[in-house]
Amino acid sequence: MAVATQRITLYTTKICPYAHRVEIALAEAQAEYKKYQIDLANKPEWYAPKVNPASKVPALAYGGPDIAPETPSPESEKLAESLILVEFVADLFPQASLLPEDPVLRAKARFFVETISSKLTPTYGAFVLRGESSERVLSGLEAIQDTLPETGKYAVGDQYTIADVAFTPFIARFKFATENELGKFTPEEGRRFVEALQQPKFLKLSAYIGRLLERESFKATFDRDFFKGFLQQRFS
Amino acid sequence: MAVATQRITLYTTKICPYAHRVEIALAEAQAEYKKYQIDLANKPEWYAPKVNPASKVPALAYGGPDIAPETPSPESEKLAESLILVEFVADLFPQASLLPEDPVLRAKARFFVETISSKLTPTYGAFVLRGESSERVLSGLEAIQDTLPETGKYAVGDQYTIADVAFTPFIARFKFATENELGKFTPEEGRRFVEALQQPKFLKLSAYIGRLLERESFKATFDRDFFKGFLQQRFS
Ligand SMILES: N[C@@H](CCC(=O)N[C@@H](CS)C(=O)NCC(=O)O)C(=O)O
Ligand SMILES: N[C@@H](CCC(=O)N[C@@H](CS)C(=O)NCC(=O)O)C(=O)O
Repeated sequence: MAVATQRITLYTTKICPYAHRVEIALAEAQAEYKKYQIDLANKPEWYAPKVNPASKVPALAYGGPDIAPETPSPESEKLAESLILVEFVADLFPQASLLPEDPVLRAKARFFVETISSKLTPTYGAFVLRGESSERVLSGLEAIQDTLPETGKYAVGDQYTIADVAFTPFIARFKFATENELGKFTPEEGRRFVEALQQPKFLKLSAYIGRLLERESFKATFDRDFFKGFLQQRFS
Repeated sequence: MAVATQRITLYTTKICPYAHRVEIALAEAQAEYKKYQIDLANKPEWYAPKVNPASKVPALAYGGPDIAPETPSPESEKLAESLILVEFVADLFPQASLLPEDPVLRAKARFFVETISSKLTPTYGAFVLRGESSERVLSGLEAIQDTLPETGKYAVGDQYTIADVAFTPFIARFKFATENELGKFTPEEGRRFVEALQQPKFLKLSAYIGRLLERESFKATFDRDFFKGFLQQRFS
């Protein structure tokens, strides 16, 4: 277990792909931390005023006394926004090598993240939760594939970085929902997505996704049964 | 002059607030680099295929042989997106201290940048170039003021960081356009904006903006006459 200079509490929600990013980063860092589940349908009344004014997960409390997550201390720093928290974990635990040393590779990792933010993450709710067409998802995935390097196991080479962390929770949920036919999309639209990803034109992306989903930090932080239960309750 | 390990060419456009960010960062770093002006109304045909497929400014070429910017070398790395380029400059020139050492302050600087991206930059074109109401601009500025620390000269304390770099070109253009009554907005709407910023509730933000606009790196990179000419030609 890597011990950060100060205490970490993560406020998270199992179904949330944004929060999942931070859990993966902390797992990669083998960080010791407290995890507190926020029920988005029934948020504790102290959460917005004392942890995250935007009332979203993920949020992270850093430092301060050793107290229960339900009684956040004014002495800890409260930080939010998944991508910022992933960079924060990378900064706190340099030994996890979540950021390349080379400034050019860092810029490329951040460019990959930017591509995900502009082209993929907005399509998640639209397709899985609201049943819009998979077209935008697939064109987002094409843009992501185009950003992959010629060689290398991950988004910017052989090193697993913040770029991979940012992508993993989203692609995992797209695949899980469509492969289990659970979501607001029609069964045909779900199959269309599954088949599209199997086309030769997505060979490179699919191989990359396979490597992401084999990663221990992902497997240890994705609660498939919980996510399945959530989708079933909402959509079947 | 700080010399980066490799050659830098910046593709920029004087009126563009995004590109301006990178010029400020390079000025803060006292970096030696080549600057090439892209005419957005008449882009060189080599720009998208050889420099930035998204066909936007800013873009930066790093490394490769010493050749004219008009004939970009395939050997240089091509990087894009203003915020990524600002972090790249911060990484290349650590002596410029554009990123705090402390991970918590880094996260706060990035959170400030995120607030600008989500609440302010989308309002620039809307208000100045398309004449929409100033309401969203002012509520964005309120959110930004709320993100300022209790004390300190800049966005996250006394150190001038990427957060300040990200904000400066936008606030400078909002002020310049409204104070000179040049933009798509009506004269009343322009005055409303100028007066709103003078209200006591914006005292803290105004003092901060004053410090930003006094910074040498800003003054050396903002071509007021050029920007005025652009606005005049388009709007008066
Ligand atoms: N931009 C934020 C987005 C976080 C977000 O949207 N989280 C959702 C859950 S996945 C949330 O907390 N929504 C508030 C709510 O459901 O009340 C980030 O990257 O952290
Ligand atoms: N997200 C980009 C935005 C850059 C951008 O929109 N630049 C504008 C000029 S201010 C541009 O090049 N637009 C393309 C065009 O006008 O053809 C960044 O932060 O660098």
